Amino acid sequence: MKKNAIVGQSGGPTAVINASLYGIIKEGMAHEEISRVYGMINGIEGFMSGNYMDLSNDLTAEELELLKMTPAAYLGSCRYKLPDDLSSPFYPALFEKFRAMEIGYFFYIGGNDSMDTVSKLSRYASHHQSDIRFIGIPKTIDNDLVLTDHTPGYGSAAKYVADTVREIVLDSSVYQQKSVTIIELMGRHAGWLTAASAMARKFEGDNPVLIYLPESDFDFERFASDVQTALTRKSSVVICVSEGISDSKGKFICEYTDDVQLDTFGHKMLAGSGKILENFVRNRFGVKVRSVELNVNQRCSGMLASAVDIEESVQAGTEGVKAALKGITGIMIAFNRTADSPYTMECITADVDQVCNKEKLFPKDWICANGTDITDDFLRYALPLIQGEPKRKMEGGLPVYIFRK
Amino acid sequence: MKKNAIVGQSGGPTAVINASLYGIIKEGMAHEEISRVYGMINGIEGFMSGNYMDLSNDLTAEELELLKMTPAAYLGSCRYKLPDDLSSPFYPALFEKFRAMEIGYFFYIGGNDSMDTVSKLSRYASHHQSDIRFIGIPKTIDNDLVLTDHTPGYGSAAKYVADTVREIVLDSSVYQQKSVTIIELMGRHAGWLTAASAMARKFEGDNPVLIYLPESDFDFERFASDVQTALTRKSSVVICVSEGISDSKGKFICEYTDDVQLDTFGHKMLAGSGKILENFVRNRFGVKVRSVELNVNQRCSGMLASAVDIEESVQAGTEGVKAALKGITGIMIAFNRTADSPYTMECITADVDQVCNKEKLFPKDWICANGTDITDDFLRYALPLIQGEPKRKMEGGLPVYIFRK
Repeated sequence: MKKNAIVGQSGGPTAVINASLYGIIKEGMAHEEISRVYGMINGIEGFMSGNYMDLSNDLTAEELELLKMTPAAYLGSCRYKLPDDLSSPFYPALFEKFRAMEIGYFFYIGGNDSMDTVSKLSRYASHHQSDIRFIGIPKTIDNDLVLTDHTPGYGSAAKYVADTVREIVLDSSVYQQKSVTIIELMGRHAGWLTAASAMARKFEGDNPVLIYLPESDFDFERFASDVQTALTRKSSVVICVSEGISDSKGKFICEYTDDVQLDTFGHKMLAGSGKILENFVRNRFGVKVRSVELNVNQRCSGMLASAVDIEESVQAGTEGVKAALKGITGIMIAFNRTADSPYTMECITADVDQVCNKEKLFPKDWICANGTDITDDFLRYALPLIQGEPKRKMEGGLPVYIFRK
Repeated sequence: MKKNAIVGQSGGPTAVINASLYGIIKEGMAHEEISRVYGMINGIEGFMSGNYMDLSNDLTAEELELLKMTPAAYLGSCRYKLPDDLSSPFYPALFEKFRAMEIGYFFYIGGNDSMDTVSKLSRYASHHQSDIRFIGIPKTIDNDLVLTDHTPGYGSAAKYVADTVREIVLDSSVYQQKSVTIIELMGRHAGWLTAASAMARKFEGDNPVLIYLPESDFDFERFASDVQTALTRKSSVVICVSEGISDSKGKFICEYTDDVQLDTFGHKMLAGSGKILENFVRNRFGVKVRSVELNVNQRCSGMLASAVDIEESVQAGTEGVKAALKGITGIMIAFNRTADSPYTMECITADVDQVCNKEKLFPKDWICANGTDITDDFLRYALPLIQGEPKRKMEGGLPVYIFRK
């Protein structure tokens, strides 16, 4: 019996979340078991308010190709936590909508919190004999999902970081005067993206000479000593830090001001570890200091996306549809690396209950003993993920992106 | 009689200052009147300490091609103001170095302050019957030099701004919740770079919906009213502001904190107009607000450079050498636009005394009456300058750049 599919995007946008959407639409439309592929507008939250579109009908072939190369979430996103109590009236209301729209396949592209949504829905379905298939497609620049080698979105963000840090290093080294440049990178708890700055180096000993991840305790005095040593070796010192570095008591460095807020999920909204270290270095050493926060650019740069990441993100969507059609449910598509060089990867499935609400931190043994650098193991891991520059449509000197009117 | 040429880079780096250097080296080596092309390391300041290299000998052909595509200043830069008093002992000391190195041609690539250097040296030379030719090659992302249609470096920075703002607009519009995103762009006094954000729009009425330049007086209450109106029309409002916006009394918006410093030239070191407006909007409207400072990325991104800008920067260097060999001195190479569409440009010469220490501000009649947008005249002016994506050498997923060891 023919059924419809529905797909949503959730959590923070990435350069390639639309590539996974593209994969789901293309693969969905290629199978006659699936009549239509609907898209939830603003995820499950928007869908509950009745917002959705028919992706199998509303997009031209050309628009579909543009979608693959457009950063940020085409369908819009949400940060909406489903009720923990599966007996909440939320669930029958949602499943009634599914029934009315003849949904047989549900795909949710997102990170930890989105996998929590997939987990709850698949558990509810199994308790209530629903045969809807619930599939999670991973997405996060943070690379912090467990049971997968890496996540779609990380490769592009890592490439952006490596490229941009390389360019800032050149920029920062034009003057003779001693200077310190501090680059703040995204990552509340996991240092994957900050570690990517190590790929910026052009030669052994090149900047960034100091890299601090949230996985190591940060200590101001040890930092001062690290900076002092670096300044004796180089006139221009570039330092990369995660937004979420914290001291041995777990206090975030950005909390050394009193400007902390919470987001919907109770996450601390962090900003400013770079700025705080800038002021610290200026006061301590009296040298020229600048801090640069790469900010949202690192997650939404389509122009600097990784071709490998785009193709793998499409594949994650494609494999999600295939899994659903095989009758599998309650899983997340995951990546299993089969070789580093030449790099090969295969898609597998992971139990979504085992993925949600967990965080894969940066491995301690990939951090050098002094806590200021990354080992070559990480470079072997990360380099394959940043390869290739996608060919994209340009018009008037700027990239052409698709958007909902 | 054969003479040597010497070239220096000065002031803030850009994506294409090395393209002009490339033009000078290539053209210099093509003329038999020139024996060697020397490069001052860290501009005139480094040269006075004896730091220079032989560019006609020390670079392989492959390195020279990489130089054309490498952002930031390969030779290093300086911010060194020559003595105003031409009878200072600085000048005979410098000219003695020139004599010892058989310098016949002097090229300085830079902005306002660098043209001041060229002006002083050419005036000193003319007072002392030196036949050294002094030529300025323009360079600044600020586009604020007079007597030239635009400056090398502006097109690439403008392309970076337009592209990045377009991507941040996509990123900022994924949630349903009302939000304001404030993007702070470089420009102390001139709004050229902030104006470039208007090119980010994909359709009429698209974000950024509000653009504030230093050329208009900024008023917090009028701003609040602009934001309120914008929030009734759009759930996601993106605003672009220059770092140097100021109120009607000339007080910089970033001075609404007490964190102001001066650089060597007595310029105010500004930062934070975006952050201050972020806090203002949050307190006033209680909506989600984020500020993004594009920072040095906008001047040093080689990956997003404009092909037109690179080629014109090479041309500026080439034409500088040709002018010097014709015996011209005390000039800056300038761009004269001959048509908008299709865009054509020719190099001319401008009296460097008329260029230095002046600033070309953004034309008042290209700012809309309410001071929150740019007219189409600007788009016609700027669009030709951001065209084309240069082909560059990539290795391991990252751009290959040349640097001094």
